[in-house]
Amino acid sequence: MTENTPRPVDPLDPFTFVLHGSSGDLSRRKILPALAHLAAEGHFRPESRIILAQRQAATPGQALAQEDAFLAEIGDESARKSLSALQPHLGTAALALGEPDAQASLDRAVAGKPEPVVHYAALPASRFIDLMALINGPRDPARLRVVLEKPLGYSGKDSRRIEDVVAQHLDECQVYRIDHYLGKQAVQNLVALRLGNLIFEPLLNREHVAQVQITIAEDLGVEDRAASYEQSGALRDMVQSHMLQLVATLAMDPPISLDADALRDEKLKVLRALKVPRVGARDSDVVIGQYVAGHMNGRPVPGYQQEDGVPPRSLTESFVALKTEVNNWRWAGVPFLLRTGKRMPMRLAEIVVQFREVPLQLFTPLGGQWTGNRLVVSLQPEDSLQLHLLAKVPGQRDCLQPVALNLDFSDAWRIPVRDAYERLLGDILRGRLSLFLRRDEVAAQWAFVDQLRDELQERAARPLAYPAGSYGPPESTSLAFRAGGAWSESLKLAGE
Amino acid sequence: MTENTPRPVDPLDPFTFVLHGSSGDLSRRKILPALAHLAAEGHFRPESRIILAQRQAATPGQALAQEDAFLAEIGDESARKSLSALQPHLGTAALALGEPDAQASLDRAVAGKPEPVVHYAALPASRFIDLMALINGPRDPARLRVVLEKPLGYSGKDSRRIEDVVAQHLDECQVYRIDHYLGKQAVQNLVALRLGNLIFEPLLNREHVAQVQITIAEDLGVEDRAASYEQSGALRDMVQSHMLQLVATLAMDPPISLDADALRDEKLKVLRALKVPRVGARDSDVVIGQYVAGHMNGRPVPGYQQEDGVPPRSLTESFVALKTEVNNWRWAGVPFLLRTGKRMPMRLAEIVVQFREVPLQLFTPLGGQWTGNRLVVSLQPEDSLQLHLLAKVPGQRDCLQPVALNLDFSDAWRIPVRDAYERLLGDILRGRLSLFLRRDEVAAQWAFVDQLRDELQERAARPLAYPAGSYGPPESTSLAFRAGGAWSESLKLAGE
Repeated sequence: MTENTPRPVDPLDPFTFVLHGSSGDLSRRKILPALAHLAAEGHFRPESRIILAQRQAATPGQALAQEDAFLAEIGDESARKSLSALQPHLGTAALALGEPDAQASLDRAVAGKPEPVVHYAALPASRFIDLMALINGPRDPARLRVVLEKPLGYSGKDSRRIEDVVAQHLDECQVYRIDHYLGKQAVQNLVALRLGNLIFEPLLNREHVAQVQITIAEDLGVEDRAASYEQSGALRDMVQSHMLQLVATLAMDPPISLDADALRDEKLKVLRALKVPRVGARDSDVVIGQYVAGHMNGRPVPGYQQEDGVPPRSLTESFVALKTEVNNWRWAGVPFLLRTGKRMPMRLAEIVVQFREVPLQLFTPLGGQWTGNRLVVSLQPEDSLQLHLLAKVPGQRDCLQPVALNLDFSDAWRIPVRDAYERLLGDILRGRLSLFLRRDEVAAQWAFVDQLRDELQERAARPLAYPAGSYGPPESTSLAFRAGGAWSESLKLAGE
Repeated sequence: MTENTPRPVDPLDPFTFVLHGSSGDLSRRKILPALAHLAAEGHFRPESRIILAQRQAATPGQALAQEDAFLAEIGDESARKSLSALQPHLGTAALALGEPDAQASLDRAVAGKPEPVVHYAALPASRFIDLMALINGPRDPARLRVVLEKPLGYSGKDSRRIEDVVAQHLDECQVYRIDHYLGKQAVQNLVALRLGNLIFEPLLNREHVAQVQITIAEDLGVEDRAASYEQSGALRDMVQSHMLQLVATLAMDPPISLDADALRDEKLKVLRALKVPRVGARDSDVVIGQYVAGHMNGRPVPGYQQEDGVPPRSLTESFVALKTEVNNWRWAGVPFLLRTGKRMPMRLAEIVVQFREVPLQLFTPLGGQWTGNRLVVSLQPEDSLQLHLLAKVPGQRDCLQPVALNLDFSDAWRIPVRDAYERLLGDILRGRLSLFLRRDEVAAQWAFVDQLRDELQERAARPLAYPAGSYGPPESTSLAFRAGGAWSESLKLAGE
């Protein structure tokens, strides 16, 4: 492994960062800690300002104390240590979006402060339009940027309505649409491995790949998010952005550069080439599910419909498994299996590229089945990459056994792998758009999800029950089987 | 990594093993320890016999005591522990090859013992013909086998003379020609990785490989081997078998099976396709060298011509570097750089497959030069495989740095990686020929070396001086440079 040398910090030019919705969960859990780490690492010049905008007025001291208490509660001691580094940059603003004095409050808050002014909308999509009404700045990304958190609405139509308003106020190059999965080390390394190395690109195509699986499994249930989850469900919550972006990142052709538009042009081509899964009573390419009472780690847990805030006969899916294909020259015919759900046995996010079997296997398997070669990109619980091979067991016989070559990022460089938001905020403040979604990408993602939802509705598909603590309805297993394989956890049980 | 489970031992059918030259260095250092380990692991049935044949008579007890003393001297405690397991199988025979009573002694020694009878010729090639005169057994590999140690003569003509005699007494399928490099775990795993996995085979060709380097570096000088080394030199000692076999193993096409002839047919095709290096005053494809006085680990050491037993104006090469090519559809134009020498800075044997650069590098190198992707098969000092990649350094910037994915065999299975001879003896006793050389392979290897030697002679090439403790004459560096690269140790210095 490479010896780690301390890297010089490249401080950001001065900026004003307005955090809208600064008392919300996302701000407290992710954005403020990421800002604190950046400040503590010396990325901010003294004149840079961070303004916490929220409905209730608070002093910077109060806001910091609240954040510190919150971090103590969730046990983020590392962020607590960095928090004081924010103090010299911090201001607050009482700002009630949609109220008549909002404009004046906001103007006052940013008056005379350094540019660019970055508005970070850590808000529900329903408030984006109210925020946009206040954005009257120049159409110049060097002076004004806006960051939008997902979900951008709950359908393509809804998203279009918001985006049309955004476009009235801003040029596309001023808009940073976040999908924080793109800030994860493993996802960035997937791009780096593909494009920085010779050996992967010749293998990532229909000739050598049997199947791609993407799983985002949550062990949690709906928790206190019932109200918003009832509006989305697994398909809109997870598939619409995170999962389709992972497909696009894995499947895209090499771009002509790493510039934002070059990269996003390639991803867009993949998103537009996605085949909408066929919905049917039998041999359906999509399975939706809803968890019923079950067990997690031996402890009984309630079903979805028994959770606080969920209506008793809810038809919201808490699980979806689907098969799609990337209908282009490179990937046609290769199943892309996507699966996500709540109350699955573990918290896990991974991309598994399952390569084809060798055309002729000359060696003898030593117990168990062959599992073939796999490239596994793990995003959760840890960022890592693994290459699963078969190698010869030492000794007298010519038997092969699975081994994994590991690339663990924190190990490799002995520097902590920080949360995705730290990287993404750094990019926003530097004006780098590559890790953010373009409007046409979001639209293509919605087109896929909307069409699939229409199909489901037309066929009156209802979520199938699965016990909490399981891998979803058994129909999900059949779906993988029909696509020529098994979900990766069963390969692990058999082969490793 | 895979959990290790103890593997059941598959005992060998009864046999009689006659070790000719049992008091020689090879027998004492390698063969007797390997037999002892096999016995201690339970591979031998009680009725199996091991007969130590040597000129001076000794009892089995004396022979064991001598071996124990030798192992203590060289510090092989592991073999000493196993040694007593040989005792129940052991016999001795006083046998003076070439003497009139040799036949009677040998017949007496094996009379009534179990078949197959395996004659292991741990002898100088000059004695092979004397041994062959005594072999009058059936032309049936189930009843009689003969093991020949390299060198099989000192030229193609010499080898042919011996082989003609061998062929008068034995069928090809009874002859086990040893190149112990083929018994090494890393070499066997090279075959396993290539043929047991999908992902390497599509990359191992002229489209993706820039260069192949094979280095066998010895830190030792000629030691007490001057007499035999003067007859061979680096070209015949190392290139003729070990290095050309490594080329063949790496470059061969996938065989139709792992059976001996299927495998050897493919290797033979490579050996016959080798381009003989061009010898010239300038831009020569071959560099020969001879070490002069220098330093090893800070200690002064004498030059080759000052070593005991070396004539003062010797022209024997102790170093050779050459560029060849495998002139077939798969490899044409890819330089295969071979290099071996004595008194180099370290003991090292490795195959380095240097892949081409990516066609378009989108990332920024972080210091140092790009080194591209490399597959490194290490045979010495440890058996291991490494895949060298570039991966993204965590943090704010899109920089790549080299990382190595490691497959360390003893680590992977938590079982000791034993010496190559243990595996090879097991194969001989099981009647498996795959890891042994066929006569036509040896002939093709000699054809390459003889032609090269003829060229060198014709051009009156003399070895260039290099100081002990260096990587050879500077002309070796130019040779690698003209082939489009640098020797692997300089990549390591720059990139890792």
